[in-house]
Amino acid sequence: MIERAGVAVVGVGNNVSAFLQGMALYRATGELVGVRRPVLGGMGVGDIDFVAAFAMSPGKVGKDLAEAIFAPPNNFPRIVDDLPPSGVTVRRGLSADDAGADAAEVERVAGEFAGAEVVLYAAPSGRQRTAEAYAEAALRAGAAFVNITSDTVARDPRWLDRFTEAGLPLLGDDLTSQFGTSIVHHALLRLLEERGLTLVSSYQVNLGGTEDFRNLAENDNTKMESKLNALGTAGRVELAPLGYLPHLESHKVAHINIEAQAWGGAPVSLDLKLKVHDPSGGAGVIVDLVRIAAHALRRRRGGCPPETASLLKSPPSL
Amino acid sequence: MIERAGVAVVGVGNNVSAFLQGMALYRATGELVGVRRPVLGGMGVGDIDFVAAFAMSPGKVGKDLAEAIFAPPNNFPRIVDDLPPSGVTVRRGLSADDAGADAAEVERVAGEFAGAEVVLYAAPSGRQRTAEAYAEAALRAGAAFVNITSDTVARDPRWLDRFTEAGLPLLGDDLTSQFGTSIVHHALLRLLEERGLTLVSSYQVNLGGTEDFRNLAENDNTKMESKLNALGTAGRVELAPLGYLPHLESHKVAHINIEAQAWGGAPVSLDLKLKVHDPSGGAGVIVDLVRIAAHALRRRRGGCPPETASLLKSPPSL
Amino acid sequence: MIERAGVAVVGVGNNVSAFLQGMALYRATGELVGVRRPVLGGMGVGDIDFVAAFAMSPGKVGKDLAEAIFAPPNNFPRIVDDLPPSGVTVRRGLSADDAGADAAEVERVAGEFAGAEVVLYAAPSGRQRTAEAYAEAALRAGAAFVNITSDTVARDPRWLDRFTEAGLPLLGDDLTSQFGTSIVHHALLRLLEERGLTLVSSYQVNLGGTEDFRNLAENDNTKMESKLNALGTAGRVELAPLGYLPHLESHKVAHINIEAQAWGGAPVSLDLKLKVHDPSGGAGVIVDLVRIAAHALRRRRGGCPPETASLLKSPPSL
Amino acid sequence: MIERAGVAVVGVGNNVSAFLQGMALYRATGELVGVRRPVLGGMGVGDIDFVAAFAMSPGKVGKDLAEAIFAPPNNFPRIVDDLPPSGVTVRRGLSADDAGADAAEVERVAGEFAGAEVVLYAAPSGRQRTAEAYAEAALRAGAAFVNITSDTVARDPRWLDRFTEAGLPLLGDDLTSQFGTSIVHHALLRLLEERGLTLVSSYQVNLGGTEDFRNLAENDNTKMESKLNALGTAGRVELAPLGYLPHLESHKVAHINIEAQAWGGAPVSLDLKLKVHDPSGGAGVIVDLVRIAAHALRRRRGGCPPETASLLKSPPSL
Repeated sequence: MIERAGVAVVGVGNNVSAFLQGMALYRATGELVGVRRPVLGGMGVGDIDFVAAFAMSPGKVGKDLAEAIFAPPNNFPRIVDDLPPSGVTVRRGLSADDAGADAAEVERVAGEFAGAEVVLYAAPSGRQRTAEAYAEAALRAGAAFVNITSDTVARDPRWLDRFTEAGLPLLGDDLTSQFGTSIVHHALLRLLEERGLTLVSSYQVNLGGTEDFRNLAENDNTKMESKLNALGTAGRVELAPLGYLPHLESHKVAHINIEAQAWGGAPVSLDLKLKVHDPSGGAGVIVDLVRIAAHALRRRRGGCPPETASLLKSPPSL
Repeated sequence: MIERAGVAVVGVGNNVSAFLQGMALYRATGELVGVRRPVLGGMGVGDIDFVAAFAMSPGKVGKDLAEAIFAPPNNFPRIVDDLPPSGVTVRRGLSADDAGADAAEVERVAGEFAGAEVVLYAAPSGRQRTAEAYAEAALRAGAAFVNITSDTVARDPRWLDRFTEAGLPLLGDDLTSQFGTSIVHHALLRLLEERGLTLVSSYQVNLGGTEDFRNLAENDNTKMESKLNALGTAGRVELAPLGYLPHLESHKVAHINIEAQAWGGAPVSLDLKLKVHDPSGGAGVIVDLVRIAAHALRRRRGGCPPETASLLKSPPSL
Repeated sequence: MIERAGVAVVGVGNNVSAFLQGMALYRATGELVGVRRPVLGGMGVGDIDFVAAFAMSPGKVGKDLAEAIFAPPNNFPRIVDDLPPSGVTVRRGLSADDAGADAAEVERVAGEFAGAEVVLYAAPSGRQRTAEAYAEAALRAGAAFVNITSDTVARDPRWLDRFTEAGLPLLGDDLTSQFGTSIVHHALLRLLEERGLTLVSSYQVNLGGTEDFRNLAENDNTKMESKLNALGTAGRVELAPLGYLPHLESHKVAHINIEAQAWGGAPVSLDLKLKVHDPSGGAGVIVDLVRIAAHALRRRRGGCPPETASLLKSPPSL
Repeated sequence: MIERAGVAVVGVGNNVSAFLQGMALYRATGELVGVRRPVLGGMGVGDIDFVAAFAMSPGKVGKDLAEAIFAPPNNFPRIVDDLPPSGVTVRRGLSADDAGADAAEVERVAGEFAGAEVVLYAAPSGRQRTAEAYAEAALRAGAAFVNITSDTVARDPRWLDRFTEAGLPLLGDDLTSQFGTSIVHHALLRLLEERGLTLVSSYQVNLGGTEDFRNLAENDNTKMESKLNALGTAGRVELAPLGYLPHLESHKVAHINIEAQAWGGAPVSLDLKLKVHDPSGGAGVIVDLVRIAAHALRRRRGGCPPETASLLKSPPSL
């Protein structure tokens, strides 16, 4: 008999909307469209239950999770006509300042994690202390922790050690989209290299319309550096600044150009446009991370499971 | 000390022009731009000598090879300012009809192959009997045979057996370009699959301006089928008819579209334009096939060397 | 008070589907999205009634028009959820061979055109005699004739004279899509010229998935020549062969490339992809042609109204 | 007999390089490639002489103009093999602070404008006081003033009045490229409107590698607003932030997307990539502005000539 995975989600954004709706769609239709691993760790894509949810926005707290996922600024569309209530009411999360979180609050949240095998940390990036407070709560609750934000948890040796010693899985940091710009650009550059072409120059333009994308476009240069590092190729790849274009809503568009030289220096040009539904790309990886985490927890394998390598942007260096 | 490979070329088209000029360029500049394998079988890219050349066109026969490569309909551009004479005069080749070639002619050509370790068969595709006559001559001359046309030689068990028994390498059939539509399209479809996306539909448009391309566009459906087979994916990929556009000269342009579904059925669209110098893509692979052939000959390894797998479109099935 | 236009349609293909459904949509929503002329000749886009319809296919004859438009090979999608019956039953049309149509058949159809101000001839292209037989019937019925096929009617001086003398409008031949490849390509080439750039080369690739497109791809070279003529620019524009790709269904995709030189010979490259719903582009022009025809009929203006110039591919030369 | 126009240039950047080299190329080859108006105001494209040049950079001052145009950060390539010296030595220009320029300096420069019919102001944008000081010097020297920067001169009624009263032409502000993103985007949006499509959304991405482009990318939001104003269409067009990509050198690349609806709400998608040599696009318009200015001066027509309308981004509002 299949053991279903119980998940507590922190953050009720577009990714969680795509994750919850996608599972409902598969249950309704039975068609496994766009699924990387139909079965993983013995669990199907529908064998995951939400047991708790946390958010900060008054528009989300107090609502059923299946309703809260449509509150603005979320803009991932409704993909299931009749979405049943989840039975989980969104609770108020905790917040931390530079001094960290209130100990009583951490204790409260740890209590509310009861029954969850996996804590999925999907809050907005850039709140380091808050991420750590939730990791602490997960540790106290004996749950696995999956960090899909770019905040530093799994790649911090102190946290990794604490989870490993406790026999609890810690997966992160920052997920790689199921099919996004980085993956496609990287695959093409690698192919170029395999075939012996000399890279002359390459650029990547990223455009998006979600609230997450707006945050990145306004604040973040570490994101850009992380992207460049992922591509390698020594200064020949350039990234245009992120473009927040609200009309794109939850879509993400990338333009990639590659200029290279083949035999005899002959020019090779490649231009590519990629359009994806950003939150769907996240959810398609979340569903695997959650199952890997639950499976590892059951086997008492603490730390970061190596099979997550192709699913994470900044895994612990080993 | 490096043993240089002696090559007899059959056919003096754009591919041979790019091959000869590319080697001259590397000798002149020393810069290995666009080279897949700087050293292969102990030989550098400049360690290849032409020892004989054959063509049918009156505009080519009787000229030095370094001059004949610019005779029309060849249209690969001049990429080396001062191209030295090759010292090899293009001779009249043989032709065969349905009854095969004249035995004396085959004998003559076999004699003229003397001193060649490798016969590079690069005549226009679609003359099966002629291809076989040259293979016969190579066999008699004790040379390796590299067939870069789509005519059937290496994948015909009878020819493969004869070369294998004689301890002579037989490489073919039909080369995969160094970086062309098939390779890029295939890599993207494979990436899609790895990441769990469901392919909805895909198309490929191929445009070109060489004489070879015109032949393919006017005659060839086997080429199209071979392309489709290479891509796999069960009927979801469609090829538009080849478009011969003389303005493109020796360039080749491809438009590729892929429509897929990610998690939750979310649409993913990818559009790509690829522009390459067609003959350069051929030459970048020829330089490796010739070195592999010479190396195998010296080691008395008959048949088709397995390391050619990623360089050929229709290798012998093993 | 608005006088509504009564239309008899010959041919029940994708264009008629898009035309009928579009009007139903506007009636249902009141939103004039994608409409070139909200009011034309005193009529709104909803002020058109179908009074008769003719087809040859057993899958269409005998059905209500609002049902017949979904019979294969039609593949324009359903864009109105609850499409009311039209009240018009599709009748069997006439067919003509080289000797022309049966006189009694023409008489029958002329009788069935009773009550129609406009006959919209939208059968498959390439049946010259059949087109003429319907024109004859329209003439006898005293109706305007709109020919949206590439068959020769309005540009044949004999037909134009007969309609003109009878005071009946004759609009044609062949419609220009509301927004298609020809219009976009032409606009860009004209802009280039205005700004003083020198055109080097240009190509156009057309891909489609309708039955009409299949016919064109398999048979038609006059279509290609007509397209080239429309673009002008003396041999510098090349058209790839039409690509029938069933996966595209009722979509049409075009790839356009333009290479030019600006001041000092500096290169300018432009690449464009256009994706449209083919039948919608036809219907967006039909709705104007029908209103122009009805308006001209009421004013007893025979022949081809000059205001159709930008809506037709092959209008009568004047 | 043709009267040749004498021009003093202020600023020795990429635009001036393309302008000077282009004229040399036409004189050498006689081929008028990429020229909007072969003859304008009675002058051919080669009938322009440089009589003075001003710059601030130590790498340019003191050199012959034909040499100074290749000093960094200029990166427009050499397009003429043997460029003859211009005979004009680049002099040190003037600079102004918030209090304006030194009066003696303005007087000096006015003296050095002697013999120039036209002063071409092509310094870096963003130095309002400096632009005004040169305009003052031109006024005193009795020369026409052409401002191709986005600084405010011609659209300032006070300057326009002074030039008009003095019978001196004042052309500006800010040139429209011969063939750039704004022009192409605008033409497509206008075509869409003519054909009755409803615009849903549109974006424009601009990438470039010149020093000018870097300045814009780092400082300028007025440029973006000016671009948006030019496109109109009420908030449906979005601009991504300018991307300074050094690898592009003097090229400029734009990606344009347009999403619209045709008849029945059917979706229409258009994607376009445009690649141009930025300075060439400027020079192709400068050559016309200079001739219009010289012609107007000779006819004593003060102020901004109306025939410049399609060549300027921010002309005086009339």
